[in-house]
Amino acid sequence: MTSSKQQILVAAAACFMEQGFHTTTIDDVARRLGATKGRIYHHYPAKIDLFFDVHREGMARLFRAVEPAMQAPGDGLTVLAAMLHAHALALMDNYDFESVVVQGVQLHRFGALTPAQRQVLDELIASRDQFESLFKQQAEAARRDGSMAELDVSVAVKTMLGALQWSLIWYRPEADAGPSSRAALAAAMVRTLINGLQRRS
Amino acid sequence: MTSSKQQILVAAAACFMEQGFHTTTIDDVARRLGATKGRIYHHYPAKIDLFFDVHREGMARLFRAVEPAMQAPGDGLTVLAAMLHAHALALMDNYDFESVVVQGVQLHRFGALTPAQRQVLDELIASRDQFESLFKQQAEAARRDGSMAELDVSVAVKTMLGALQWSLIWYRPEADAGPSSRAALAAAMVRTLINGLQRRS
Repeated sequence: MTSSKQQILVAAAACFMEQGFHTTTIDDVARRLGATKGRIYHHYPAKIDLFFDVHREGMARLFRAVEPAMQAPGDGLTVLAAMLHAHALALMDNYDFESVVVQGVQLHRFGALTPAQRQVLDELIASRDQFESLFKQQAEAARRDGSMAELDVSVAVKTMLGALQWSLIWYRPEADAGPSSRAALAAAMVRTLINGLQRRS
Repeated sequence: MTSSKQQILVAAAACFMEQGFHTTTIDDVARRLGATKGRIYHHYPAKIDLFFDVHREGMARLFRAVEPAMQAPGDGLTVLAAMLHAHALALMDNYDFESVVVQGVQLHRFGALTPAQRQVLDELIASRDQFESLFKQQAEAARRDGSMAELDVSVAVKTMLGALQWSLIWYRPEADAGPSSRAALAAAMVRTLINGLQRRS
């Protein structure tokens, strides 16, 4: 991706995050970028194409964050914990983009889309399923090697991913105290999920 | 609340859930109800007032589900688990209404609202905070009596409520196999949160 396109995506992600898809205009994105509308239209014929590319970049950033964690040393659960930590951190580090991914899920449900747009969004949603399956496979490996409890893998994965992803609803980047506070928050969430609420004797 | 109003809310919740706030019309609600638009306008001057009342009813149903669980016998964690189970079940049992509550949170962020509307929505969001604080207080009690692990209570509560609430994103009522399958799903989610992913030795 060219750096010009990348700059447009960053500005667009910020606008969509703050105002939502429906009220954001190409003008807003141009203004934030300090560029002409022409520069954006050169790459994106319509607002929804821009939105899709932000969504696509948001998913790509999640994969890029989690895939290296899959190579972590240790038993199945240790690797799963590293993946969850990387995911939690990526959600906060890329807050604008990942908030747009959630909006994309809503758009998928409610949006009046053309067949071509529906197909693009279907592919983006399929990429979410693929992302979830990375965690499912790892959870299955962790059950096999005995490091994970005997839980329903599908429900457990949905529960833990939901726990992290809901942070997009309550996390406030403007109150953020920097990378180390994000890492501490990610660690606290993952510890809660790994250890459980019940005190271990 | 009169039964006429209650019927309107049930129809409106279904419409808002299926189509989202922006594309739902009073006509849609009237059609679903098999009633005239006049009957709805008699109670609700505008679509947003109807939306607010669905949101309000959604929050009321969560409180009504969780409050009895606060009286469950047992140590602090047992009560907390009962509250989580009641919450998980209420989210599924009242899927239409609770999906609208999530839409309300988005509207709070993105919606162009009048000051009077903003005030109503502020009150509804405050009621969410109050709901969360029921769980915080119980988690603190569970830490005090030693049944809960030494976790950051605020992060732990946000993590576990998020885990359950994200089910509004993936749960599909049309694939639902009835009350007993909902109860089993709620139990599996709560077990994941209470026991944690790590196998207990």
